[in-house]
Amino acid sequence: MEKHKLKRFAVVGGDLRQISLANHLAQSGFSVTALGFDDSSPFSPLVTVAQHPHCLSSMDVVIFPLPVTSEPNIVNAPFFQEPLPLDQCLRRIPHKAAVFGGKISPQEAAVAQGLGLAMEDYLHREEMAVLNAVPTAEGAIELAMNELPVTLWRSRCLITGFGRVGKVLAPMLLALGAQVTVAARKEADLAWAKVIGCQTARLKNLAQAAKGQDVIYNTVPSLLFNEETLKYLEPSCLLIDLASKPGGVDMEAAKNLGIRTIWALSIPGKVAPITAADIIKDTILNMLEERSK
Amino acid sequence: MEKHKLKRFAVVGGDLRQISLANHLAQSGFSVTALGFDDSSPFSPLVTVAQHPHCLSSMDVVIFPLPVTSEPNIVNAPFFQEPLPLDQCLRRIPHKAAVFGGKISPQEAAVAQGLGLAMEDYLHREEMAVLNAVPTAEGAIELAMNELPVTLWRSRCLITGFGRVGKVLAPMLLALGAQVTVAARKEADLAWAKVIGCQTARLKNLAQAAKGQDVIYNTVPSLLFNEETLKYLEPSCLLIDLASKPGGVDMEAAKNLGIRTIWALSIPGKVAPITAADIIKDTILNMLEERSK
Amino acid sequence: MEKHKLKRFAVVGGDLRQISLANHLAQSGFSVTALGFDDSSPFSPLVTVAQHPHCLSSMDVVIFPLPVTSEPNIVNAPFFQEPLPLDQCLRRIPHKAAVFGGKISPQEAAVAQGLGLAMEDYLHREEMAVLNAVPTAEGAIELAMNELPVTLWRSRCLITGFGRVGKVLAPMLLALGAQVTVAARKEADLAWAKVIGCQTARLKNLAQAAKGQDVIYNTVPSLLFNEETLKYLEPSCLLIDLASKPGGVDMEAAKNLGIRTIWALSIPGKVAPITAADIIKDTILNMLEERSK
Amino acid sequence: MEKHKLKRFAVVGGDLRQISLANHLAQSGFSVTALGFDDSSPFSPLVTVAQHPHCLSSMDVVIFPLPVTSEPNIVNAPFFQEPLPLDQCLRRIPHKAAVFGGKISPQEAAVAQGLGLAMEDYLHREEMAVLNAVPTAEGAIELAMNELPVTLWRSRCLITGFGRVGKVLAPMLLALGAQVTVAARKEADLAWAKVIGCQTARLKNLAQAAKGQDVIYNTVPSLLFNEETLKYLEPSCLLIDLASKPGGVDMEAAKNLGIRTIWALSIPGKVAPITAADIIKDTILNMLEERSK
Repeated sequence: MEKHKLKRFAVVGGDLRQISLANHLAQSGFSVTALGFDDSSPFSPLVTVAQHPHCLSSMDVVIFPLPVTSEPNIVNAPFFQEPLPLDQCLRRIPHKAAVFGGKISPQEAAVAQGLGLAMEDYLHREEMAVLNAVPTAEGAIELAMNELPVTLWRSRCLITGFGRVGKVLAPMLLALGAQVTVAARKEADLAWAKVIGCQTARLKNLAQAAKGQDVIYNTVPSLLFNEETLKYLEPSCLLIDLASKPGGVDMEAAKNLGIRTIWALSIPGKVAPITAADIIKDTILNMLEERSK
Repeated sequence: MEKHKLKRFAVVGGDLRQISLANHLAQSGFSVTALGFDDSSPFSPLVTVAQHPHCLSSMDVVIFPLPVTSEPNIVNAPFFQEPLPLDQCLRRIPHKAAVFGGKISPQEAAVAQGLGLAMEDYLHREEMAVLNAVPTAEGAIELAMNELPVTLWRSRCLITGFGRVGKVLAPMLLALGAQVTVAARKEADLAWAKVIGCQTARLKNLAQAAKGQDVIYNTVPSLLFNEETLKYLEPSCLLIDLASKPGGVDMEAAKNLGIRTIWALSIPGKVAPITAADIIKDTILNMLEERSK
Repeated sequence: MEKHKLKRFAVVGGDLRQISLANHLAQSGFSVTALGFDDSSPFSPLVTVAQHPHCLSSMDVVIFPLPVTSEPNIVNAPFFQEPLPLDQCLRRIPHKAAVFGGKISPQEAAVAQGLGLAMEDYLHREEMAVLNAVPTAEGAIELAMNELPVTLWRSRCLITGFGRVGKVLAPMLLALGAQVTVAARKEADLAWAKVIGCQTARLKNLAQAAKGQDVIYNTVPSLLFNEETLKYLEPSCLLIDLASKPGGVDMEAAKNLGIRTIWALSIPGKVAPITAADIIKDTILNMLEERSK
Repeated sequence: MEKHKLKRFAVVGGDLRQISLANHLAQSGFSVTALGFDDSSPFSPLVTVAQHPHCLSSMDVVIFPLPVTSEPNIVNAPFFQEPLPLDQCLRRIPHKAAVFGGKISPQEAAVAQGLGLAMEDYLHREEMAVLNAVPTAEGAIELAMNELPVTLWRSRCLITGFGRVGKVLAPMLLALGAQVTVAARKEADLAWAKVIGCQTARLKNLAQAAKGQDVIYNTVPSLLFNEETLKYLEPSCLLIDLASKPGGVDMEAAKNLGIRTIWALSIPGKVAPITAADIIKDTILNMLEERSK
């Protein structure tokens, strides 16, 4: 990474995560300017806080937040008083600069492209998705610890789906002493679950697998937990939906059946903003490294 | 345990833990009467709720709560309207009955003895202390997860003392991906810590070991964290004191230095009352088993 | 699997693994005939041992060994005196039967197809590859334990490549107390390695990562360990090549440099034939299940 | 340890472990002389090899092997041609020197005391016993891996006794995916086993617990596995006795019943001599540290 040390970074908008990202970059020895924050934001003294998009014209790397905008063409900048228009930022960035953002919309990409900029989305990087599974899994464990009157030790946990989050969450639960069942569709996923010591069930037998569980973590964004399946849950079962929209639980039916349900979205930024910032930083440095090849 | 199945148990006073204990015993097939609870307490239908100490005269086993009394001679019975005097309970218990309680005071023991009863303290049992280390460790992890802006994964954790709680907490933290240092006085304890993969430090070098930690768990009930040591902590460090009274932290000095400190006492009953009840149940059944030899 | 219980299975040829497979299928309640074994082979009394391919004409499922043949058209049947020609077996199998084999050659597949049979290769199934990673990893650990004058605890291990075997081997080594580094090309693989607590290195920095290691496990079937890289290894380093042909080590150069090297191929059948048989059984039952849909 | 850096160490007799110990001490910066080895022994160039006990008169620390003697008054020195009498060594050691040995007999202690020397036994140190449990457990796993036709993953293992070795071995087996049962007498030991995720059995129900196991590890030096109990073992069960003399297995009865039994004694020095040497070194440095207080 040494060759990037002379680069000038701008961190534009965002919440605690972006502040933390700016601080980490500065501590790593980069020159960092922050835009879209008021003066009292908790930046390291190493970070220069700018007030106007002018500053972007001298940057080598510009990092927009996740998501990039909060309303059309307005950068997501909750710590800045005035609206910061995205196009006014973009038009000042030099063509040769590297521009990054999280969850870039097609419209935003088009605007950037129209201005000759290739804006890259760090949320599309697989290593980011893998690393983000860790704060997501920790947040999922924290929720269960907060809500359950039993320990995870000796509890019975069901995980539906066995993608990244399931693969990180399951060994954590096992290490805490839970008895973990994984329900998935693919035989290869069930094989992975067996390898690490989980019980397994086919998704078509979900209702049966859901019986007797203390906690159920859903990671599949499709309606697995419809009314019929929900009827098999213990009244004391806690159902935590980690799936992105549209989620996997019929919330109305769950409410009617008296089942405690939590739909936990975007966990990393909420439970561990500093770690989330670190993950974004590592991902962006990887992307820079690959550009420079 | 079959031979105890005909025994009649009374559960006298206490909170959710005792209710859960009564329910578990009843579900295990024992005849159970509860005394010291109002009618709306969440007992299983298998449990008989009695209103008067008379019922104790026909019991084989009587279980008082932890602690036994809330004020002198008044059974700790937060879910009961009227005061329930301990001596009135004790004098109705048959001499051959087994009588258990948690944290029995010398005075209470003396009253029982005067009435010809040998009251046994389940809190003195080693297996109870070992098992209780699990909910304590989980509660300790929950606190850190709730408070820290970083994941435990890749965090730096220090545990001072390596008794039961330390020995359960350390592998949990390691399994969640933390880098764990154990500071203890005895070489054998440090050897155990090395065996499971922790860094180690001698207690005399505590200040040095405390530098750079994200969380510190103290388990030693003596003033390790005095003002001088506290000065070595990072401003962002979370200090969780798990030691029983008098604790191990100079709270005044910590406050002045702006260090976040949590003194977490009696965790099992708070974070996992149902598991705590299960542990008491298993311990009491062991004690009964040994009496019957 | 209940619907398959009436099916008649034939297990044709192979070594202890196929014998074990036949026994397991019989113990699971299937009707099982073995062909290609002499009378003294250690079959369960539930298995019928046949002497002639005639028997295959009444079968629903026929399972050939891994690999199917030992020389052209001769079934791999080390426990059978006479040569057992593959085509003579195949021509007796009913068209509706399910036919399985391991590492089926294009020629063998063509012969089967010419006879109207769809021969399926269980080695191509992903769940089989996943499950086989477990005996492979255990065998890899056993080799290191046998060879090294140090414990794996506190040893330094490098794994090159982070596919299935790496993903199973790394957590085992960590659990035994080793310090594990993973060298891989893809950022996502390095992210997985970080998630479970490994150090990481990019493959382009392999020589540097190889310095100071006690054991190196290679899982990449391409010449990573050429003479230049091998020069960086400690003289005491043990190099275990788990990669399939052509392997990843310049064996000549390793020998000249005095580096102990073991090329460990086809571990599952060697170190754990009974588990290997169980894995084949589970895989074939999955394949049958999917055919019957 | 800085203050010991000027000390002169002698390593007297022993096998590869003592050679390794001498090398490690020299690499740590101490001045080291070896006595009781021939010239071709694989010492680091930093170690001085002496031929005569004269050299001991200038030493600050003298370390005898484990055990100290091979026959009465003859130092255990398999790599030395001539007999090296213990008393001739001892009488040359200065009174103020620290003298260490492993498994010192009462006679040897008496001889040393008669010469004004306080010889200390590192084998009596608890941290040494704790650390030695690691190579013992690894050796125990290696034996099972070498002998069993199944993986430890999904195997059923029984451990009798839950002292140091059991407490190190059980989590290793669990981490490798075994299903582990611990049989012990004390409730507190069974509680520890439950905490880490083992099944438990009381020793009085040993025969029942022994049924259906793939491997049994005995750690109790008393005849648990008599003929009556051995009859309950599977014919395929592997019985590994880790208990010191008199062991825990009726070997005659086991042989008659056709049960494979391995009595594995003094594992650390055999399977991991370099790690064993490191453990002795750390223990002796602790002992020196405590003397200097």
